[in-house]
Amino acid sequence: MSERGDSAQPPLHGEEFDDILTEPAEASLDEDDRLKPGFVTAVLDAVEEGNDEAARDLVSPLHPADVADLLELTPAERRGQVAAALGDIVGAEVLSELNDYVRDDLIGALAPEQVAEFAAELDTDDAVAIIEDMEEADQQAVLDAMEPEDRAAIESALAYPEESAGRLMQRDLVAVPEHMTVGQVIDYLRDNDDLTRDFWEIFVVDAAHKPIGTCQLSWVLTCPRGIAMADLMKREQTLIPVDMDQEEVALRFQKYALISAAVVDGSGRLVGMITVDDVVHIISEEAGEDILRLSGAGEGDINEPVMDSYRARVRWLLTNLLTALVASTIIGFFEGTIEKMVALATLMPIVAGVGGNAGSQTMAVTVRALATNQITGSNARRTILREIRVALLNGTTVAVVLGIGVALVFQNPHLGGVIAAAMMTNIVTAGLAGAAVPLAFDRLNLDPAVASSIFVTMITDSMGFFAFLGLATAAGLTG
Amino acid sequence: MSERGDSAQPPLHGEEFDDILTEPAEASLDEDDRLKPGFVTAVLDAVEEGNDEAARDLVSPLHPADVADLLELTPAERRGQVAAALGDIVGAEVLSELNDYVRDDLIGALAPEQVAEFAAELDTDDAVAIIEDMEEADQQAVLDAMEPEDRAAIESALAYPEESAGRLMQRDLVAVPEHMTVGQVIDYLRDNDDLTRDFWEIFVVDAAHKPIGTCQLSWVLTCPRGIAMADLMKREQTLIPVDMDQEEVALRFQKYALISAAVVDGSGRLVGMITVDDVVHIISEEAGEDILRLSGAGEGDINEPVMDSYRARVRWLLTNLLTALVASTIIGFFEGTIEKMVALATLMPIVAGVGGNAGSQTMAVTVRALATNQITGSNARRTILREIRVALLNGTTVAVVLGIGVALVFQNPHLGGVIAAAMMTNIVTAGLAGAAVPLAFDRLNLDPAVASSIFVTMITDSMGFFAFLGLATAAGLTG
Repeated sequence: MSERGDSAQPPLHGEEFDDILTEPAEASLDEDDRLKPGFVTAVLDAVEEGNDEAARDLVSPLHPADVADLLELTPAERRGQVAAALGDIVGAEVLSELNDYVRDDLIGALAPEQVAEFAAELDTDDAVAIIEDMEEADQQAVLDAMEPEDRAAIESALAYPEESAGRLMQRDLVAVPEHMTVGQVIDYLRDNDDLTRDFWEIFVVDAAHKPIGTCQLSWVLTCPRGIAMADLMKREQTLIPVDMDQEEVALRFQKYALISAAVVDGSGRLVGMITVDDVVHIISEEAGEDILRLSGAGEGDINEPVMDSYRARVRWLLTNLLTALVASTIIGFFEGTIEKMVALATLMPIVAGVGGNAGSQTMAVTVRALATNQITGSNARRTILREIRVALLNGTTVAVVLGIGVALVFQNPHLGGVIAAAMMTNIVTAGLAGAAVPLAFDRLNLDPAVASSIFVTMITDSMGFFAFLGLATAAGLTG
Repeated sequence: MSERGDSAQPPLHGEEFDDILTEPAEASLDEDDRLKPGFVTAVLDAVEEGNDEAARDLVSPLHPADVADLLELTPAERRGQVAAALGDIVGAEVLSELNDYVRDDLIGALAPEQVAEFAAELDTDDAVAIIEDMEEADQQAVLDAMEPEDRAAIESALAYPEESAGRLMQRDLVAVPEHMTVGQVIDYLRDNDDLTRDFWEIFVVDAAHKPIGTCQLSWVLTCPRGIAMADLMKREQTLIPVDMDQEEVALRFQKYALISAAVVDGSGRLVGMITVDDVVHIISEEAGEDILRLSGAGEGDINEPVMDSYRARVRWLLTNLLTALVASTIIGFFEGTIEKMVALATLMPIVAGVGGNAGSQTMAVTVRALATNQITGSNARRTILREIRVALLNGTTVAVVLGIGVALVFQNPHLGGVIAAAMMTNIVTAGLAGAAVPLAFDRLNLDPAVASSIFVTMITDSMGFFAFLGLATAAGLTG
């Protein structure tokens, strides 16, 4: 019954074997677990025709996460209608899986009593996620409609800062004193019906309710009844302070490969538990949001209202306009040179553009390494030196190719030499700036992903134009 | 003993409370769980002075993940010496936590017997991760040095494609037939010493060893002994085909909030299990690597050898050089116009640059939404239309600001009008290209993050120069 694989069984390659994935929902999903467009259309058509029954038959085999996807894929103006047609299928679990914007949209249409009912069905953390973004008055109406116990749990969670461990944790957990034996713990778990049924570890606490150890359920199950929890538990545990930022929580889960962790208050008492399934989407979001920040795309959610996206992005573009003016001013200094040799105007964007690209590469590497805690004070200088070494190699290659090309095409070896020297200068500058600027922002406790690219682009643009036009002038190319 | 939090306890804000995090290792970590530079220096100094004992005393309280960080933060040329000084502390677990490049480096210095010993201590998936990147001959030497059973498990895993579920899974799992009761399962677990002690769910299989249900350990623990597994298990399960790509595995874990999942072969038989802690780093890597791909930074790992980084990045820069030539050629068509009015050369990079930025924003949003499966055939057109709407708003704002500014500074309302129209055109083009190009690559089953930015930059650069210089020529500005 135990399993050590079967090495005689040859591995299958190539084709996925859909036929063995026996869930009925599979027929509606493509190989990437995305809902097939044909399926979505079929549901929307059924609702359109007033055939709610048919729509429900299609959707009911789906996992709540897929029902949430279906609502997200429904055009915004039809979501209320589709949700209404699906009725009970759109339950608390579906709501907690929904994209924030889509959920706020749908919840706005519900009565406070309905929202309260949904919230009561969920773990504290999921209920909080649904309620926390509501308007003050709506939130109060929902809380007023809840049972006192649920309400107290949610109010207490809402008292913690947004995006903190306190909002993320659930309060239902299993904690036992260290003198209990495995047998006593199992009896206790069997006898108490009001305990949560979803937990992965048991926390062992002292008399003051401070966690002193953690015990995986598999250890409890594989041990004789007589063993004391104190002898079974692991004493080294990773505790989460209740006010820790959720990004730090996610990094901690990832670094120490945690399945669940105890959350403690300022006096070290156990107040809640965070499980990895609540953290996985944060890990993914945090890792993915740097790409949006580097480009100034704000939240970057395709469900965000257009006006919100506009406001976030236009601010960035106007800042970019200002820094472009700096580069433009530098070109202005050399108008006399360009007038004498207009080919310089044709070539100068190459030097600026390829330099900008080299800067983006280094910046992406540095921002990513900072986000994953791979760079600290111990290796920051080494990282900059490494990037400069890569830049010297890149610069040499690109400069030689570009220089020879220009010399041949323009039949002007001097021009080739000038553009090669400028290209080299700009790529090395880009390597230095691409590494040093994010590191400097990080040192100042500013998010390196947010502000770096504005500065790096300004530096590579300006240096590109300055080095090329300046060297051309100094070399007497036009002279 | 059960816990529902304590809502009377006011939440703490602000300061983290280091004093309650009682692990000795905490003193060596900063608030982001990174090793403090002072600590790293102390260890390196101790090793340098030949005081291995002192180094070991410092490092031994650390979690294996932190020991791995320490080795990563050690300059490459001193890593062998530090690892040797730390002796046993650098065990199998530390190796499995190490960055790939750093690990390959260290393992290269070990005898095959030592590597075999490390691999034997680990779960199959971690052992495979250590061995899979070795040279063929070294790999064979390690396998030859292993016990036949461990060796068979690893060889069977290596027979699956790289980055597939087969490489990621472990073979030690607990599977029981459905007729067993909870009590029988517990007795079975207690009586079999050679079972794995680390598992989170029990798989229920039929006579052909196909999984028919999954049972969380917490359900087993909270149920009376007499209940049959068939009545307790959840029948809807998410199965992982053994040849599934690890990125798909990670997305599936994330979407369905899985803790562990059964891996099945082509005939549907249970062959292994994947747990979320093995997937978390893939989720983070996959989410983070788009930023590196969009910028053409290759692996983007700061531990990658300089020559590898050079090769990956220079290819991209040379491609970028080619596309920059396209933009340059377009400028070349308008040399006559620029000669008559050199201010155009000063201003043209603004139109190209801000357009490029607008393109990057849209591209980042689209690439991210594609990576998280938020865009499918159902909403692709809607997403493009949404981006164009944002672009129209952005374009209008930036064009008005830039147009008025240029008209005033150059005392030339015509020039202001021309640059405003060009800016508007380019930002809308950027919005269209930034959304459509990644979507087109995705439709063609190509990675949208890899190739999109080359094309989008070429489009926004070319359109920027063409619209501005073309409109200036057409408007008779210079003439």
